[in-house]
Amino acid sequence: MESTHTVTQPAKRGRPGYDQETVLQIAVEAFNEHGYDATSMGKLADRLGISKSAIYHHVPSKEDLLRLALDEALIPLESMIDEVNKHEGSAEERLEFFLRSTVRILIAKRAYVTLLLRLRGNTELERTALQRRREMDRQLSELVLLAQQDGQIRQDLEPRSTARLLFGMINSVVDWYRLDGPIDAVTLENHAITLLFDGLHPKH
Amino acid sequence: MESTHTVTQPAKRGRPGYDQETVLQIAVEAFNEHGYDATSMGKLADRLGISKSAIYHHVPSKEDLLRLALDEALIPLESMIDEVNKHEGSAEERLEFFLRSTVRILIAKRAYVTLLLRLRGNTELERTALQRRREMDRQLSELVLLAQQDGQIRQDLEPRSTARLLFGMINSVVDWYRLDGPIDAVTLENHAITLLFDGLHPKH
Repeated sequence: MESTHTVTQPAKRGRPGYDQETVLQIAVEAFNEHGYDATSMGKLADRLGISKSAIYHHVPSKEDLLRLALDEALIPLESMIDEVNKHEGSAEERLEFFLRSTVRILIAKRAYVTLLLRLRGNTELERTALQRRREMDRQLSELVLLAQQDGQIRQDLEPRSTARLLFGMINSVVDWYRLDGPIDAVTLENHAITLLFDGLHPKH
Repeated sequence: MESTHTVTQPAKRGRPGYDQETVLQIAVEAFNEHGYDATSMGKLADRLGISKSAIYHHVPSKEDLLRLALDEALIPLESMIDEVNKHEGSAEERLEFFLRSTVRILIAKRAYVTLLLRLRGNTELERTALQRRREMDRQLSELVLLAQQDGQIRQDLEPRSTARLLFGMINSVVDWYRLDGPIDAVTLENHAITLLFDGLHPKH
């Protein structure tokens, strides 16, 4: 991998051998393996094979790494929800689009979403990210309610907990799904959608 | 809360004001809030309001606290699976019993299950607990396969990823379900079972 020495451009910090994206990827791996709180900038520097002071040429603080990493997960999810809101289909079609797109983003951004899902809300930054997650729960729950009002999905389920259960199944993908496992990503997506909309019982 | 001074009984360690169960509860809260790796015995002692040396009267090491805490989640789940295996009903009935019982145990043992679900496998003890979790995945996946072979559930879903998706929805309960929220525990259980077996689509 090639990278450029960018001492004169503070917005695009870098050191030979690493760009900010690579530093971010390696940092997120470390956060996921040992926990954000337990991963010091010193440990990150060791992992990158650079000095502790060199790491600050890439990013001003550990919290900035966390912010950048969380945005890698949150921004695509929020853009997807914007798309859902502009979508002209029925509430059920928009619900399916929401759930399918979430599966895709989770697979594409797996390490970043894992970090997001494990946040504990111990700092202002973590609480803001959790607030953005709750806003997504709210949007999904609203879509469930709309589809219920249109009679497209069953009406005997409370919308907020339904939204949480839907996200529960889909979010689990980051914990166990392997691209080299028995099913490919498209099959997984169809599989989850079938289970959520039609359940385990066979069609009659 | 009362407790007894048990200097002569190392198997039932204690200090005035705390029994081992309370120490365990408070330790698990701290592990869940800050991560196991980031929670030192010193921090735990602070949280308990006792000295660092006093904490060793309750438990020989931090790893012993983790072992005891994980057993609080794993033992009831494993006993439930033993019951499922002795159950004389159809594969579908046993599958429903498995899923319903899991929801109940997760609600009753919430903090301990949260700890289990966040394990990273960094030590031998963590890897052993993850191995026990994988064995539960295997048992659920086998039950899915049996119910498919009996024609009681749809056959177009790969059993192993189906088991993971089922656990995914159910396990999420420890992250978001509140006993004082809009639905009670029995409603939540029925709600999750309806969604898993019959899906979002209305009955025809």
